[in-house]
Amino acid sequence: MNSFGNHFKVSIFGESHGPMIGITLDGCKPGIPLSVEDFEEDIRRRQPGAKGTTPRVEADQPKIVSGWYKDFTTGAPLTILFENQNTRSGDYDNLQKQPRPGHADWVAMMKFDGFNDPRGGGHFSGRLTLALVAAGVVAKKMIGPVKVTARLTEAGGNTDIEAAIAKAIEEKDSIGGLIECQASPMPVGLGEPFFDSVESVLSHAIFAIPAVKGIEFGSGFSAARMKGSEHNDRIISADGKTATNHAGGINGGITNGNDLIFRIAIKPTSSISKPQQTLNTENRKVEELVIEGRHDTCIALRAPVVVEAVTAIVLAGFPQLSRE
Amino acid sequence: MNSFGNHFKVSIFGESHGPMIGITLDGCKPGIPLSVEDFEEDIRRRQPGAKGTTPRVEADQPKIVSGWYKDFTTGAPLTILFENQNTRSGDYDNLQKQPRPGHADWVAMMKFDGFNDPRGGGHFSGRLTLALVAAGVVAKKMIGPVKVTARLTEAGGNTDIEAAIAKAIEEKDSIGGLIECQASPMPVGLGEPFFDSVESVLSHAIFAIPAVKGIEFGSGFSAARMKGSEHNDRIISADGKTATNHAGGINGGITNGNDLIFRIAIKPTSSISKPQQTLNTENRKVEELVIEGRHDTCIALRAPVVVEAVTAIVLAGFPQLSRE
Amino acid sequence: MNSFGNHFKVSIFGESHGPMIGITLDGCKPGIPLSVEDFEEDIRRRQPGAKGTTPRVEADQPKIVSGWYKDFTTGAPLTILFENQNTRSGDYDNLQKQPRPGHADWVAMMKFDGFNDPRGGGHFSGRLTLALVAAGVVAKKMIGPVKVTARLTEAGGNTDIEAAIAKAIEEKDSIGGLIECQASPMPVGLGEPFFDSVESVLSHAIFAIPAVKGIEFGSGFSAARMKGSEHNDRIISADGKTATNHAGGINGGITNGNDLIFRIAIKPTSSISKPQQTLNTENRKVEELVIEGRHDTCIALRAPVVVEAVTAIVLAGFPQLSRE
Amino acid sequence: MNSFGNHFKVSIFGESHGPMIGITLDGCKPGIPLSVEDFEEDIRRRQPGAKGTTPRVEADQPKIVSGWYKDFTTGAPLTILFENQNTRSGDYDNLQKQPRPGHADWVAMMKFDGFNDPRGGGHFSGRLTLALVAAGVVAKKMIGPVKVTARLTEAGGNTDIEAAIAKAIEEKDSIGGLIECQASPMPVGLGEPFFDSVESVLSHAIFAIPAVKGIEFGSGFSAARMKGSEHNDRIISADGKTATNHAGGINGGITNGNDLIFRIAIKPTSSISKPQQTLNTENRKVEELVIEGRHDTCIALRAPVVVEAVTAIVLAGFPQLSRE
Repeated sequence: MNSFGNHFKVSIFGESHGPMIGITLDGCKPGIPLSVEDFEEDIRRRQPGAKGTTPRVEADQPKIVSGWYKDFTTGAPLTILFENQNTRSGDYDNLQKQPRPGHADWVAMMKFDGFNDPRGGGHFSGRLTLALVAAGVVAKKMIGPVKVTARLTEAGGNTDIEAAIAKAIEEKDSIGGLIECQASPMPVGLGEPFFDSVESVLSHAIFAIPAVKGIEFGSGFSAARMKGSEHNDRIISADGKTATNHAGGINGGITNGNDLIFRIAIKPTSSISKPQQTLNTENRKVEELVIEGRHDTCIALRAPVVVEAVTAIVLAGFPQLSRE
Repeated sequence: MNSFGNHFKVSIFGESHGPMIGITLDGCKPGIPLSVEDFEEDIRRRQPGAKGTTPRVEADQPKIVSGWYKDFTTGAPLTILFENQNTRSGDYDNLQKQPRPGHADWVAMMKFDGFNDPRGGGHFSGRLTLALVAAGVVAKKMIGPVKVTARLTEAGGNTDIEAAIAKAIEEKDSIGGLIECQASPMPVGLGEPFFDSVESVLSHAIFAIPAVKGIEFGSGFSAARMKGSEHNDRIISADGKTATNHAGGINGGITNGNDLIFRIAIKPTSSISKPQQTLNTENRKVEELVIEGRHDTCIALRAPVVVEAVTAIVLAGFPQLSRE
Repeated sequence: MNSFGNHFKVSIFGESHGPMIGITLDGCKPGIPLSVEDFEEDIRRRQPGAKGTTPRVEADQPKIVSGWYKDFTTGAPLTILFENQNTRSGDYDNLQKQPRPGHADWVAMMKFDGFNDPRGGGHFSGRLTLALVAAGVVAKKMIGPVKVTARLTEAGGNTDIEAAIAKAIEEKDSIGGLIECQASPMPVGLGEPFFDSVESVLSHAIFAIPAVKGIEFGSGFSAARMKGSEHNDRIISADGKTATNHAGGINGGITNGNDLIFRIAIKPTSSISKPQQTLNTENRKVEELVIEGRHDTCIALRAPVVVEAVTAIVLAGFPQLSRE
Repeated sequence: MNSFGNHFKVSIFGESHGPMIGITLDGCKPGIPLSVEDFEEDIRRRQPGAKGTTPRVEADQPKIVSGWYKDFTTGAPLTILFENQNTRSGDYDNLQKQPRPGHADWVAMMKFDGFNDPRGGGHFSGRLTLALVAAGVVAKKMIGPVKVTARLTEAGGNTDIEAAIAKAIEEKDSIGGLIECQASPMPVGLGEPFFDSVESVLSHAIFAIPAVKGIEFGSGFSAARMKGSEHNDRIISADGKTATNHAGGINGGITNGNDLIFRIAIKPTSSISKPQQTLNTENRKVEELVIEGRHDTCIALRAPVVVEAVTAIVLAGFPQLSRE
């Protein structure tokens, strides 16, 4: 459902145009120093403002309302709230009769029998990734020496990302992107042989991020085109270090002490300014749809910090990492 | 850990060279007609024998020991056992001091403090996918009209798969492969907005299959290079059918009624006949390793039925599909 | 941890003297009519004010911040917040060095390495049962025709409850009580044979209520002193109705269609005005403790509505009850 | 469903008259010395043979088929099987049309749409507690210094238990009993404030044992009749030891380092030789039922070792106890 994890659990709630969004973190280690300022950098990295991001800017001020006392985590559930302020619900009125192609509008209506909050995508909005980023700030503190770094390596198939964005804006279109994420130094032995392999739990959480459509570990899809003699990482020292890292730091579902490396595919933002043809659910005809409102040309620009957050949340769920 | 699912739960156990492997299915609908013969076809599809697969052939006779009465499921936990007969443990003796590159040997030793069963990969063995296939047979019956089909589309980067295998055998090497899986017809509304998106739960389970290193839904990694105007699937009829299916049948984590489509990358078998250089954990030197024993040139050849099984297990976990 | 349930999940957070407490309900059916007024009666039943209850009175105004749109549940996670206003933290200052006997003060300090919020019991406070009551209001709506009723049958061993309270107040002491809870009409077939028997899941949730120390179903502890010929409930009609209900509506962990009946024991409030001898953790001597602050003479007076709420939450977790 | 636990998970399967019953333990610490002989004593304690127990005697030889190598646990799922040999299914034929009062016959039929295995109670049989006892043997080893002891303190309301049994046999009736269980020495800090209080998880698991109808911790139901000044346990030393133990070793859901103490009520065996009046589901009339077959006069005689096993399974689920 809308929670994830076992030893360290996050539960997310809220809608794009409701009064607030929030997240509860259960299983935080007590005694982690935490201040409101600690959230600033990661929240800023997720914020729009750069070229190719939506002009909707929010204050995004976290409010920690539980599990926090005298600037430390207490060990009890820690809840962080963000008020929604800069909402313009009127922009979305026509979407109820003409669901946006590529967006969750139509499935939300069907799944929730028409009772879903349609304003700004409601609960399906990318706005909720702000809550994930906040949880990630705490999770990053829990996993101590392990650093998680994600970066956009390509947008719209182009490594000159600024040029790709400029072109897409000109075309009133949107573009997707590739993100690479790395965690280091990694302990040996995280993960379980079958259903809770490290790839299993990471991919489970990463696909919770809106717009993610693929994930690969180490050489990933390239591995399918490789020979064993190329792909096998030779162990070269007693601590398990390997000469290459085609496995992305995972063998048999278990971390092997080498860097954890994975890449994810972000699809192009589904809301585009360009007119589209799609079903009008009232008259059941395919008609032109023009999407008003503010949206991102390339949502992938704002996603790396979300990927880092989710990765840190997953890693904080391994007691070997977060409890010792 | 070694179980998966909520409403329909599978728990796997066993080792490659122990007395038996098995799987328990909890949450089976009562009254599903089931006979031992029902398992034959899928078990046969997973068996070696073809060029490029290991010469280790087992009888693979399923023994249903609980949850089954008078040829119907009872609704109680259903356990299926398979005896291990054709084991040659001697083949693996040298692996304890020289863990195979690309294999779980080393992490298994580290994770389980040296108490792991090392024979044939122990619990990490691909042999356990037989239990998944058996569970898949029951799951396929539970999801009724929905048919799941997976096929190998490419091996070693080559769509002439037989040629690719022949070349790899000649080179004493191994190769990876690509598998495409499809489920159809799909109901609308499976999945949850965030952490239990359909992509989340499917990828979680699929990465439990040994050797899987990547997964993509619909256009997947290609989507990262597409424009929104190309990727967005226009809705063209009131039941949600779309003109294209770049989304792979999933929007916002929820099935949209179009075919579910995903592809996975299988890495090359890590056990190869070709000599390799890797650490000897006793003298801590990098030395040549020659792997004896029987192994697959292209494990991806035997994997499609495993992918189908795991997909059916995931789908059977949605009450909308399996209970009505 | 601090969440409960599978299909219908509640996650609780907050501290007695923090800014607010709250609860998130995941898995609400969409389309349940819900207004702020719906919470009034149950919240009032939990409030102090009567003789024998604490003079701390709060406004207890629920604020629904997600999962709710145009007076209906949306199907997305529904979060309800309550601000804490009438807090007097000064009252509790001496408890950090002299933990109250019978209270969670000492274990909270130990479990959370001294980082727990000690004000008013922090996260362990009975204040959080307000959030359970709010969740219960929604759960009661989900389980439709099934009505849950709990009542105090005895306080301090006395069925004249007012007299028992008056005596305890006079003695500056506190007293416990017995609560009986009933749910009717019950469907047949809720629960699972072993670990998720109806008794298992109900007792799991009921023991989350502070001060509960015992639970019995049907004849319960009396059954241990009965003969089979007395205890066995004869089935007298084709719908499973029985002549007696010693089983409390449950056989083999599964509801049998008769009324669900259980009783719980509430211990006396641990905070009493009477001086007590207990450890001073600073000088490690046993010394007199006088507890200041406002507290309940008989917390059991306010507990029946909490028991109803938790019971409704558990019942709403059975898809047979809440989804059809 | 039929599994329990998070860090240490048990999954039970099998039917009274099927080929075998079994249990899988996931999350065992690797390196626990374990031999088949280790199971003997606890299995013997559960076996019938004494006055008041059923004459059905089984060999009850455990077969460890996974997760076990060279007499140590490996860390992989450990499965233990027991063959059913001494079955007489004919004894139960008339129960399908005339479900036994107090037994699960009727609910099993209803829940599983008539597809349940009715022989000997099928999956609902007390026979499955043998698997719990076997899991308990491993769990007891995991929790190291903590010893769990349960004993029958009363049968049919009589502390002279032999006399009580003799009388019940003479009357062709059955009787219930009281069991007290203690665990010691206990660490401080097990359990969670709300839904995973120690009472919550213990009661959840204990109510999986067939015939349990009540549980109380410490003073339990007596606490409802006590004053706070009597019930509060004064802390008398810096390690948390208290002068009395009315709390049964638990405050606020968390262990306080004093002995864990609880009592459970076992109802009288529902199968009795004495004729009973109950519904015939074929002609829908209330008719006399005479139960053939072998059964226990007082199942509580055989239950203490099952209670110990389940308690050890619960305690082994706390990482503080089983991992360090």
